[in-house]
Amino acid sequence: MEKFTDLKRAQVRVTGDFWETWKQNARAHGLMSVYDRFRDTGRFGALDFTWKEGMPNKPHIFWDSDIAKWIEAAAYLLQEQRDPEIEALVDECVDKIEAHQRPDGYFNIWFDTAEPENRFTRYTDHELYDLGHLIEAAVAYRDATGKEKFLNLMLKYASLVDKVFRQEHYAGFDTPGHPELELALFRLYRATDDEKWLNLMRYFVDTRGTSPRDKTYKVFDRPTYSQTHLPVRQQRTAEGHSVRACYLYSGMADLAWQDEDESLKEACRALFHNIAHRRMYVTGGIGSSHVGEAFTFDYDLMNRTAYAETCAALSLALFARRMSRIEPRGEYADIAEKALYNGMLAGVSLDTQSFFYENPLEVHPDVIHFNDYYAQARDHMPITRRVRVFDCSCCPPNVLRLLGSIGDFAFTQSDKALYVHHYMTCQAETAFGPVHMETKYPYDGRILLTLPAGAYDVGLRIPGWCREWKLEKNGEILSPENRDGYVRLAGSWAEGDQLRLTLEMPVRLVQAHPAVHEDCGRVAVTRGPLVYCMEECDNGKYLKDVRIRRNGTPSFAENPQLGVTEICLPASRREWPEEDALYAEYSDARRDCTAVFIPYYAWANREEGEMLVWTDIDR
Amino acid sequence: MEKFTDLKRAQVRVTGDFWETWKQNARAHGLMSVYDRFRDTGRFGALDFTWKEGMPNKPHIFWDSDIAKWIEAAAYLLQEQRDPEIEALVDECVDKIEAHQRPDGYFNIWFDTAEPENRFTRYTDHELYDLGHLIEAAVAYRDATGKEKFLNLMLKYASLVDKVFRQEHYAGFDTPGHPELELALFRLYRATDDEKWLNLMRYFVDTRGTSPRDKTYKVFDRPTYSQTHLPVRQQRTAEGHSVRACYLYSGMADLAWQDEDESLKEACRALFHNIAHRRMYVTGGIGSSHVGEAFTFDYDLMNRTAYAETCAALSLALFARRMSRIEPRGEYADIAEKALYNGMLAGVSLDTQSFFYENPLEVHPDVIHFNDYYAQARDHMPITRRVRVFDCSCCPPNVLRLLGSIGDFAFTQSDKALYVHHYMTCQAETAFGPVHMETKYPYDGRILLTLPAGAYDVGLRIPGWCREWKLEKNGEILSPENRDGYVRLAGSWAEGDQLRLTLEMPVRLVQAHPAVHEDCGRVAVTRGPLVYCMEECDNGKYLKDVRIRRNGTPSFAENPQLGVTEICLPASRREWPEEDALYAEYSDARRDCTAVFIPYYAWANREEGEMLVWTDIDR
Repeated sequence: MEKFTDLKRAQVRVTGDFWETWKQNARAHGLMSVYDRFRDTGRFGALDFTWKEGMPNKPHIFWDSDIAKWIEAAAYLLQEQRDPEIEALVDECVDKIEAHQRPDGYFNIWFDTAEPENRFTRYTDHELYDLGHLIEAAVAYRDATGKEKFLNLMLKYASLVDKVFRQEHYAGFDTPGHPELELALFRLYRATDDEKWLNLMRYFVDTRGTSPRDKTYKVFDRPTYSQTHLPVRQQRTAEGHSVRACYLYSGMADLAWQDEDESLKEACRALFHNIAHRRMYVTGGIGSSHVGEAFTFDYDLMNRTAYAETCAALSLALFARRMSRIEPRGEYADIAEKALYNGMLAGVSLDTQSFFYENPLEVHPDVIHFNDYYAQARDHMPITRRVRVFDCSCCPPNVLRLLGSIGDFAFTQSDKALYVHHYMTCQAETAFGPVHMETKYPYDGRILLTLPAGAYDVGLRIPGWCREWKLEKNGEILSPENRDGYVRLAGSWAEGDQLRLTLEMPVRLVQAHPAVHEDCGRVAVTRGPLVYCMEECDNGKYLKDVRIRRNGTPSFAENPQLGVTEICLPASRREWPEEDALYAEYSDARRDCTAVFIPYYAWANREEGEMLVWTDIDR
Repeated sequence: MEKFTDLKRAQVRVTGDFWETWKQNARAHGLMSVYDRFRDTGRFGALDFTWKEGMPNKPHIFWDSDIAKWIEAAAYLLQEQRDPEIEALVDECVDKIEAHQRPDGYFNIWFDTAEPENRFTRYTDHELYDLGHLIEAAVAYRDATGKEKFLNLMLKYASLVDKVFRQEHYAGFDTPGHPELELALFRLYRATDDEKWLNLMRYFVDTRGTSPRDKTYKVFDRPTYSQTHLPVRQQRTAEGHSVRACYLYSGMADLAWQDEDESLKEACRALFHNIAHRRMYVTGGIGSSHVGEAFTFDYDLMNRTAYAETCAALSLALFARRMSRIEPRGEYADIAEKALYNGMLAGVSLDTQSFFYENPLEVHPDVIHFNDYYAQARDHMPITRRVRVFDCSCCPPNVLRLLGSIGDFAFTQSDKALYVHHYMTCQAETAFGPVHMETKYPYDGRILLTLPAGAYDVGLRIPGWCREWKLEKNGEILSPENRDGYVRLAGSWAEGDQLRLTLEMPVRLVQAHPAVHEDCGRVAVTRGPLVYCMEECDNGKYLKDVRIRRNGTPSFAENPQLGVTEICLPASRREWPEEDALYAEYSDARRDCTAVFIPYYAWANREEGEMLVWTDIDR
C-alpha cells in the first residue's frame, strides 16, 4: 500500500497572500506582544526560580509550556528570517533552562520552585505536557538556527522520563495527564532517528486507559476528562477535555501511521468521525462545554455558550492533518481547513495581538454584561472582546506557532505521488523537485501549480464544499475522477508544467441536523471554507430577527478596514407593531433590508455588539 | 371618584367547571398529599420544638410559612365543606403553636428551637415573612370555622412586632427581608378593623428603601434582591427576587387603594407595566434567572433556563388582582389570568399532588440529564418531572391556597356597580344581591350571568386577547363600548335578568418583541387565556424543527387522559438528507405533519420528553 509522508518544515515556505499576511502580522506585532505580556505576568521571570510563597506572579504548572510555545513560534518565524534580537531572547531562556535543569535532567518551573519533593506524583499537573512542548520548541529551534543546546537539554530530560515511567515505573502515575508528550516524542524520534523516543511514545499511547491509578483521577468526576476511560484502541467517541483529546488522537494517528497499526487507525477514524459528524460546530470549534472544556454528547452544540476553545480547533486541525497523511480522504482536510479558517482564526485579532479563549457562535452583550453585573445570573458566558493575555494563556502562543507552521498542512508525498491538501501561496522542495503554488484562497478558488519535470502523480484536493471545479494542464482541460475528495493525475511532467485548478466558490447556505435544537430554522452563510457571521455594527440590533431571502442574489464588497470580502444578502426584519408591546398577534409585516456578513474569523475587530452565525431564512 | 372593593371570601363560592375540578382534586388528593410530605420531612413535627443539632430534619427558617400556607389552604376548603379530620389536624398545629409561643408573643420554629438569642437580628431570615403567612392562615381559619384561638395567638405576636419594629426600633433591621407581612397586616386590619395593623403595615411599606442597615443586606451583591434599593414610591422597574417583589407590590397596592395614595398608585402602575411589557414570559411567568430567583433586565426571557417560579406567577396574579381593585383596567385581569392559567397551573400536576418549582418554556431532557450526569456542564437546569415535595417547598401549599381562594379574583363592587373580572362558574353574594355565573371558561367563551333585581351598573371584562364578542340581555343584543377592557352596562335589573357574553376564542398566534432573542422567528400558540405547547409524546423528537403552517386551519380534539382540548395544526418538518450528516447544504425538503398542542399547564403529566412553547412557523 502506498505510504505517504509529510514534508519537513524547511521544505515548505509560505510566500504570499492570505497566510503570509497573518505571518507578517505575527512577525511585526504578535510575537513580541505575547512576549511582553508573558514577561509582564512573570512567566519569563519564573525561569529564574526565585519565586517564594507570598510573592506576586505565582508560577502555574503550565508556564513552561507557555514559554515553550512562544519559543516554538519564534523559531518558525526565525527559520524564514533570522532576527538576532528574538534569537537573543530565546537563547536567554535556554541558558536559564540549562542553569536550572537538575543533574538528573528534570526541569519544571512549578515543581522545582515550589515543591520539588512532589515531582512526578500528580497526574493532572502538566509536567509531561510541559516537557512535550519544550521538546517541540527545542526541535523547532534547532531546525531554525542549528543551535543544539536546547535540544540536548530536553534529550536529557526525556531520558529521565523514559527511565522513570517506561523502565522503572516509580512515578505516581503512568501516562501524561494532559496528552502532548506523545506527539512531541514522535517528533523527537523523527528529528533524531533514535528509536528510544518512539518506544517511549508507544508506551504512553498503549498504556493510556489501562492504568488503574490513572483512572482514579476523575476530574469533574469523569475519567473521560483525560481519555483514560478506555484503552485507546477501544475508544470510539470523543470524550472529555477537547484539547487533551485531539492531542492524544494526534499522537495515536502518528503511531498508527508509523506502525501501520490497523486497529489504531480504526480508532482514529471512528474518533474523527464522531467529532466531524456529531460534536463539532460549523466553525470547526469543538468542546461545547466550559466545564472540563469538554466534549459533551452528540448534537449538543449551543451557540451562545459555545466554549469551542481556540486551542481545541487548532488541535482538531493537527489531528486531521495526521489523518490526511494516513490516507488522502478529503474529509480530513475539509475539517482541518474549517477549523483553521474559522474556529482557530476567530481566536486571534487581525493584528495577532489579542485573543479569544472561547469562541461562541452567537453573542448578546447585554446578556454577558448582566452576568458581569450580577455574578452567575446565567450560565458561564464568554467575553466579547479579545484580550492580550489570559491567566491560562495557552491559546496565544499556540496560534502563533500554528501560523508559523501553516505550511505543514499543504502537502504529503509518497515515492510516486505528490498530494496537495491545502491551497496557499508557497514554494515547496518536494521529493520530485521544487513546486510553486499561487492562489488568493480562501477568497478566490483559482490555484496555479508550477511543477518540476519528472514522472510522478499529482493529487489535488477537491473540497467537500465545492460542487463545480475545472482543471487545466497548460491551458488544456482535464477531467479526472474525484475519488474521496481528490483527483489524481498520473503523468510525466515537463519543467514548468502548470496546473490550474478553479474551484467554484458560490455562497452556500448550510443547515444543521434537526437534533441541534438551537439551529433549527436557521442557516449558516458560507463561502469556500469560510463561515460568515453578522455583526451589530453592520446590521443594527436584534440580529436573530434578521431573515435572509430564500433565493436572494448575493453581492460582494471589500471591507478595507478588516481586509475581508463581505457578503451582502437580501433580507428582511419584522415591523414591530407597537414598541411598548412585549407580545403581539403574529403578523408577517416586515421591511426589506440588506444583511451584511463578514467572515467569522474577523468578528470583534470593531466596536462591541451582537454577533450571529446561525441566521433566520425565508421559508 | 368611584371606589371599588372586593367581596369577602365567603361571599363567592366556585360551584362547578374548570376551577371546581381543581378544587375537588385539591380536596381529594392535594391537601393530604402535601400534609403527608410535610409530615414526612419533619415540618409538622418541628412544632414540638424538640429538634437539636445533629438530629435529622433540621428546621428551615421558612417552615412556619409552609405550615401556615397549608393551614390557609385547608381553611378555604373547609369553609365550603367542613371536615372534622382536617380540622383536627389544624387544631393540633394551633395547640402546639399556643404551647410554644413565648410569653411576649414571639413564635418562630427555627429561632426558638435553635438560636432564641438571635431573634429579630437577621434581615434575611424570614421571621416576619413567617408571621405574615401565619396571620393569613389564622384569619382564614377563623373565617372558615369561627375558631378564634389561632387568630388571637397571632394578634399577640403581631403586637410584639409592632412594639419591636414600629414603636421601639430595637430589632436588628427595619423591614421584612421577604415581603408578605405587609399584605398580611392589611388583611388583619380588614379582619379586625384595628387601625394598629394598618399603621404597622404602612410603616413597613414607607420604611422600605429608606433604612441604611436594611440596604447593607446585599444578597447576590445587590440591594435590589429585597427591593431595598429605593423608597417604594420611587421604584419604577421590577427588581430582585420576583416573589418578594410582587408580594411587596401587592402590599403597596393594598395601601395605595386604602389611602388613595396617588404617588403609590403611580409606582404600582409603573412596576406593573415594567413587568407586563418588559419582563414577563408569555405564560405569565416572571423572574427569569435562578440566581436570586430574580428579575434580570428588559426582554431577557430565555426559555430553556426560564426560572419562572410557580410562586412568582402566583404572586403576580395577587398583585394584578389588587390593581384591578384600584381601577378596572383590563390589562390587570389579562395578566392575572395569564399567570393563573399558565405560569401557576403548570406548577402543579393535574391531580394536584406533584409540583414544579421552575417552569421552563422549552425542555430537552438530553441536555438536562447530561447535567445530572456531568455536574454543571451547563447552566442551572430545571427538573423534567414534578415532585411531591421540595427542600424549599413554598410552591405546593401556595398553589393549594390559591386554588381554594380563586373566587377572590372574580368580582369587585362599588356602591353603584358590580364588575366581573374573571369568568368562572360560581355563586356570589354581592352588594346588590345574589349573582350566578356559569361558564366553561377557559375552553369556551360563553358566560351566562343571572342577576338580582335592582338599579346598579354591571361591568364585564373583555379580555385583551378577544377580538370579537357578543353581549345579550335576555336574548336581546347589546352593543356597549369597550373602554379599557371593560363594558359597563348602566341599568336597572329585574330579578333573574340574564346577561350572556360570548367571547370568540379562535387560535391566536403570538409573537414576541424582536429584543427577545430566543423567540425570533417563532410563535406561541394560544387560545383564550391559555398558552399551548408541544410535547414529544404527541409529536416525536426535535420539536424545534416542527414548523406550523402560516394560515393552517386548526382542528380540535378532546384529550380524556389530560382532560384538555388539544389544538392540531397543519405543519411540516425537515427531511434530513443523510442521517449521518451533521451539516448539509440548505434545502426546503420537508414532509407534512400535524402538530399537536396541549395547554402549557398540562405538560409533564405523561411520559418524559421534549416540550416546546415557542414554535417555528412558515414565512
